[in-house]
Amino acid sequence: MSSYNFVFPIQNGDNYKDKVMKFTQSDTQAILELLRWRRDVRHFKCDPLPEEAIQQMMQSIALAPSVGNSRPWRIVRVKSDVLKNKIIENHGMANQEASQKYSDATKGKYQALKLAGLQEAPLQLAVFTDTDPSAGKGLGRQTMPETLTYSTVIAIHQLWLVARTLNIGVGWVSILNAEALNKTLEVDPNWKLTAYLCIGYPEYNDDTPELVRTGWQENTEKQWLER
Amino acid sequence: MSSYNFVFPIQNGDNYKDKVMKFTQSDTQAILELLRWRRDVRHFKCDPLPEEAIQQMMQSIALAPSVGNSRPWRIVRVKSDVLKNKIIENHGMANQEASQKYSDATKGKYQALKLAGLQEAPLQLAVFTDTDPSAGKGLGRQTMPETLTYSTVIAIHQLWLVARTLNIGVGWVSILNAEALNKTLEVDPNWKLTAYLCIGYPEYNDDTPELVRTGWQENTEKQWLER
Repeated sequence: MSSYNFVFPIQNGDNYKDKVMKFTQSDTQAILELLRWRRDVRHFKCDPLPEEAIQQMMQSIALAPSVGNSRPWRIVRVKSDVLKNKIIENHGMANQEASQKYSDATKGKYQALKLAGLQEAPLQLAVFTDTDPSAGKGLGRQTMPETLTYSTVIAIHQLWLVARTLNIGVGWVSILNAEALNKTLEVDPNWKLTAYLCIGYPEYNDDTPELVRTGWQENTEKQWLER
Repeated sequence: MSSYNFVFPIQNGDNYKDKVMKFTQSDTQAILELLRWRRDVRHFKCDPLPEEAIQQMMQSIALAPSVGNSRPWRIVRVKSDVLKNKIIENHGMANQEASQKYSDATKGKYQALKLAGLQEAPLQLAVFTDTDPSAGKGLGRQTMPETLTYSTVIAIHQLWLVARTLNIGVGWVSILNAEALNKTLEVDPNWKLTAYLCIGYPEYNDDTPELVRTGWQENTEKQWLER
């Protein structure tokens, strides 16, 4: 697993004029259907995932765009139960602290929400961004250095979508002390935590966000403006 | 156009236990194929886009995930030629400044790259993140406030993928002075520029990144680590 390297199907040297990309309205409908069912999952079965599925998720990350082609995502698969327990503690403390910001009425609602599947999810990935990768030679990120992290975010989203087609759910945990997590996992100090992902087969599928279903926050949408 | 509001197909109140999500390996292959062809496009035809395509892109954004269901993306469609010209100037200055950081040999290579399709792209969207939206009640973003912007990044990526199935290309411009752009477009001071998108039919399709093809940066991929 840790020796897996994605091989790019296509590199420089071929002729783009010979290439034909063919997508149709049925592809548009299929991707919209996929987006409709993508959910942040917090209720997982403990069943392990097939290695082939994990390889397809790796491919989805390797195909992600990145600023200057810098490819700054750095991924740690957390397997150790000792480390997983430390991360559960980390989340517990951060979540407890977050709940204190709410007034009593809202606090009860907040505390009733299940916000992470850290106990059950069979595949757990800590996803970091290298804040100064050599690849890309700095292109595109002088005015907006945060585009490095954006590249990692998109890589995560690609994994999320491919996982969903495999009927696998992904939950993005952000209620964590990032500094403590870096220490727990002993990663390069230049790596910034972007997400901690819980991945596994969901207990159920739903096309409605859990925060809508539980009454925390309805879907709202602002109009596009024009200038 | 500016009065378009996305209607969510599903809201609270239905029963998720009745719902069936069915994706198969052919969906996995289709999404991987889509990810393979997604490109940052800088070479556009000037042909206008059909309004239906724009509506499908809007849908793709409305279906995006967001921290606490806060939905912080704010979108401005830039139509005015006067404003477009100011944005071209903004990019030109930022790009000139960025080129100064390279030594002479690399500078020539940098300056030869076409990094934006601002002159040609028929649809241009400035995408912002509301840095303090009321929706979501702050959930999930106390420890990592940057997750608000990440939500917008994913919304952009959803548009990017749906556009691609319509044979439409998207180019993400980050070489811009964000503060000056906010002034040009006269938006809420709490909105932070996340991306400026050039959108249109591409001059050609390619499954190889332009920065690979031009020899700026090969694809590299780090192994996943284990802990």
